[in-house]
Amino acid sequence: MSEPSPASTASTAASRATIVDVAKAAGVSRQTVSNALNRPDRVAAPTLERVLDAVERLRFTPMVSAQQLRRQRASAAGFEVNPSHQGRLGHILDEFLVELTVDAPRHGIHVVAFAPDPTDVVAGYRQTLASGLVDGFVLADTRHGDPRPDWLLAHEVPFVSFGRVWDRPELTRWVDVDGRAGLRAAVAHLADRGYVHVGFLGWPAGSPVGDDRRAGWVDGLAAAGLTTSPDEAEEAVQDLDEATGAAGRLLDRLGAVRRPAGSTAVVCASDLLALGALRAVRALGLEPGRDVGVVGFDDTDVAAAMQLTSVHQPVADAARAAWRMLLAPAGTPPVAQLLEPTLTVRASSTPG
Amino acid sequence: MSEPSPASTASTAASRATIVDVAKAAGVSRQTVSNALNRPDRVAAPTLERVLDAVERLRFTPMVSAQQLRRQRASAAGFEVNPSHQGRLGHILDEFLVELTVDAPRHGIHVVAFAPDPTDVVAGYRQTLASGLVDGFVLADTRHGDPRPDWLLAHEVPFVSFGRVWDRPELTRWVDVDGRAGLRAAVAHLADRGYVHVGFLGWPAGSPVGDDRRAGWVDGLAAAGLTTSPDEAEEAVQDLDEATGAAGRLLDRLGAVRRPAGSTAVVCASDLLALGALRAVRALGLEPGRDVGVVGFDDTDVAAAMQLTSVHQPVADAARAAWRMLLAPAGTPPVAQLLEPTLTVRASSTPG
Repeated sequence: MSEPSPASTASTAASRATIVDVAKAAGVSRQTVSNALNRPDRVAAPTLERVLDAVERLRFTPMVSAQQLRRQRASAAGFEVNPSHQGRLGHILDEFLVELTVDAPRHGIHVVAFAPDPTDVVAGYRQTLASGLVDGFVLADTRHGDPRPDWLLAHEVPFVSFGRVWDRPELTRWVDVDGRAGLRAAVAHLADRGYVHVGFLGWPAGSPVGDDRRAGWVDGLAAAGLTTSPDEAEEAVQDLDEATGAAGRLLDRLGAVRRPAGSTAVVCASDLLALGALRAVRALGLEPGRDVGVVGFDDTDVAAAMQLTSVHQPVADAARAAWRMLLAPAGTPPVAQLLEPTLTVRASSTPG
Repeated sequence: MSEPSPASTASTAASRATIVDVAKAAGVSRQTVSNALNRPDRVAAPTLERVLDAVERLRFTPMVSAQQLRRQRASAAGFEVNPSHQGRLGHILDEFLVELTVDAPRHGIHVVAFAPDPTDVVAGYRQTLASGLVDGFVLADTRHGDPRPDWLLAHEVPFVSFGRVWDRPELTRWVDVDGRAGLRAAVAHLADRGYVHVGFLGWPAGSPVGDDRRAGWVDGLAAAGLTTSPDEAEEAVQDLDEATGAAGRLLDRLGAVRRPAGSTAVVCASDLLALGALRAVRALGLEPGRDVGVVGFDDTDVAAAMQLTSVHQPVADAARAAWRMLLAPAGTPPVAQLLEPTLTVRASSTPG
């Protein structure tokens, strides 16, 4: 962008603000205004803000280059890269981000990654929006009391969520995987393989995702006509040692060592919990699958390595649905979609 | 951005192009030019290109809004999201992207994710640059004959690479983890634990990363004074069944079943190869660690789940170094940095 020459500035209508007006209003030199417009990276942030405020207030309209016009074509959505899996996105959100990005060119959109501000959940959204780089957001890792949907709704910022917007499901656009159906399918599969005592290893009550998966286990028991009581469940946070301990207590309550091989099983809310269950089974001198069935959730690399049967999320479908929803014409009513997961069957659910 | 009114267009110097000139030059209506400038998303791509070409050729300078000026402040780097790990970035690049993003605000920079074009390695870079969203790139997954560094150098696009730029190490800015030092440390650790026959399970020769890791094993044998011949190696592609087969042949050549418990070990170029080695050890009725030592590379979730000792990459340090190098003042000579990995020790290298 070239700075307007004094001649061309002078030749504009009298009612139009000039660069000199902006300089006066912002209390800076004409050169500083020029720098703010041409090399904003070289101007201190508070000064830049002051100049841009004056530009906006006076409706000053400087010239723009073709390069800037090209930039205008790029529309982008922000995606929060949350290091919540030991400093990584983790299996599911890694795949989701990849699939979003792979599908983006079809929509002429780009993905801007940004990190969360650990002290303020919406700060990263506010800052990324202020950068002017993005027009909207794709959310993930939704939870109860999540302040992000309210903030985005209040600021009329378009967004779509991978994961239900639990507090405002009817006001928002979201796509999720039906974890309850996944657990129901896991129990049906175990019953089909002849396991008759099927306990549940989940997270402490209160996490919407975890509660939903537990409900699927209860559904599954009823649907398969199994007599396991819905109390035959144990809880652990997402930690291997805790999971192993909780799984040991659950196997004890289920009477796994006294029962015939291939009659007891444990369905789990995550592959990490299931890894704890595998360890607890082996600690009793039993063999996963042959003696005790184990099913995990997410079909991670660990599930593949441990020959663990696991619920598999259709992540690519979720990413495609997210773009469709986000980019629907303005005025389209909120829409939601629950996708059906599948089961990847391995040795841990094959009785002897 | 508001369209310039006929009055203001007319009042500019005679030598300056008007919107009408642009419309004529592009062979479109004045309204189409206006649309191209104000609502580029509503104009067909070829038409938009024609209009922007005319704008550029005639040096037409329309007006710009304060919002667009704010956008100008955002600088961003492109990062190719390559679904090369079964549709995911995989452990290392997931962590690298997260760490890049977390460190970005400190530099006032943003990360734009984009997908590779499967038919043309540089197309994604060309398109992302043309979008005007990014000023440079952070590369990963470098290899021999990689066309990306040459293309970026030829187009004077700033970039930094996580992974050596193998063909042009002296012309470019890169940070890498010293895999050779990692294998050397793995062999030293095994020798220290009393294993004396230490074979190598690697990828087929020709991959620069794999060859580098193999050289580290050879170094390590010499440094520890082990008599294992540098021929006691087997190769497999990154596939579990192949790795298990190759590991079986290697254990056979090393004579693992005849030798005393705790005297044979296998170091591997990846955790997946090491998982094959663990399976091959168990298939012989032996116990990893107690009977045969096994060490992997990358310290993935699978390594943690399988209690596998593994070489750990300092990924956060690499991300921080990448930003420092990319954002060094123009004219700074090319700079490179090799980071030292560490070893995460688990049961698979604990002899009985």
